[in-house]
Amino acid sequence: MKLQVAIDRVTLENLLESVSYLDGVVDVIEVGTSLIKDYGINALENVTKKGHQSEVLFDLKTIDEGVYEFEKGFSANADTLTVMASSSIDTIEQVYALTVNQKKNILIDLLEVDETKIEKLQQFDEAIFGLHYSHDKKDQDFDAVKAVAEFHAKFPNIKKIAVAGGIDIEQAKRLAKQGIVERIIVGGKIMNSEKPLDMAKKFMEVIK
Amino acid sequence: MKLQVAIDRVTLENLLESVSYLDGVVDVIEVGTSLIKDYGINALENVTKKGHQSEVLFDLKTIDEGVYEFEKGFSANADTLTVMASSSIDTIEQVYALTVNQKKNILIDLLEVDETKIEKLQQFDEAIFGLHYSHDKKDQDFDAVKAVAEFHAKFPNIKKIAVAGGIDIEQAKRLAKQGIVERIIVGGKIMNSEKPLDMAKKFMEVIK
Repeated sequence: MKLQVAIDRVTLENLLESVSYLDGVVDVIEVGTSLIKDYGINALENVTKKGHQSEVLFDLKTIDEGVYEFEKGFSANADTLTVMASSSIDTIEQVYALTVNQKKNILIDLLEVDETKIEKLQQFDEAIFGLHYSHDKKDQDFDAVKAVAEFHAKFPNIKKIAVAGGIDIEQAKRLAKQGIVERIIVGGKIMNSEKPLDMAKKFMEVIK
Repeated sequence: MKLQVAIDRVTLENLLESVSYLDGVVDVIEVGTSLIKDYGINALENVTKKGHQSEVLFDLKTIDEGVYEFEKGFSANADTLTVMASSSIDTIEQVYALTVNQKKNILIDLLEVDETKIEKLQQFDEAIFGLHYSHDKKDQDFDAVKAVAEFHAKFPNIKKIAVAGGIDIEQAKRLAKQGIVERIIVGGKIMNSEKPLDMAKKFMEVIK
């Protein structure tokens, strides 16, 4: 199981600093949607220097104009890009083909889609399927372990699952033991802690 | 009926140049999603100088973290921001309240949502509802006039409708005559024409 650390709502300088100490320590560094929309993909090219050791994911949350956004994102050296499951199937087909062609990775964000749509998306079998809770939901009692178990029972053919949503050290341990997800995504619990690097290392330890 | 001109996939310099000659000529200037994601909201603050005459819309396509994105967008002097109808109701409630509170405008983008979702969105009665076709759809025979008539028949209580999708001069005339939509959105047909300013004026003439 991989650890993906999400960085959000910081300055470009803070982002670069965080990336420099997380690189090679965590499995995946996520450049969050807030950074994409605040600074733009063009400014983020320098985040991902050639030779970086951790996988770098840009949370583009593409919903349309898929090929344009994915070409931009991969040109800016991202290893993995995200598309909304609520996009049209045509959009997802196009970005999936482009991703496979460039030997990169794609995460399909399952925010606010129903089971009928997920069934149609199972064909994209190399994609990572991202299970998470809207940041804006009022009702925030999301249990990652339970959500993953239920999702896996419904969609046993989906190979790669990512899960996000308030995951702490205890839940990370349980998710690792559960052995279903390909990666967990942790944001604030690491980046807003007093010593983010130490906390990231602690997460890496408990999931091994 | 208003004319909204969408600018996409250009350099920042081109954007500023286009805005300078379109300002005061067209009703609404749209800074497209490609520009948001390529350059970031922070860099777009200068697009909308105090005292601009045309309404300025940032096509943020917000899907989550609504309050954060809308506060950023309005701080950067946008008059109107967009949210995806496929967002959670909580997200839309929050950005709608923020928009009304700031006396600004909101456009809810109906891309890929079904009628059940639209029914739930009717409560946001000051919002503009954006009817359009995915850029990525293979099947591109979208008839704006027909789509508007059908939508209006199904949702007679929705007051403000915007429509986009390959609208040319002839369709603009027909939409003006039809008298249902609050605005039409035209991108390439103006911005990729030989003389965008002349073409924008031509559209403005035929819709009066």
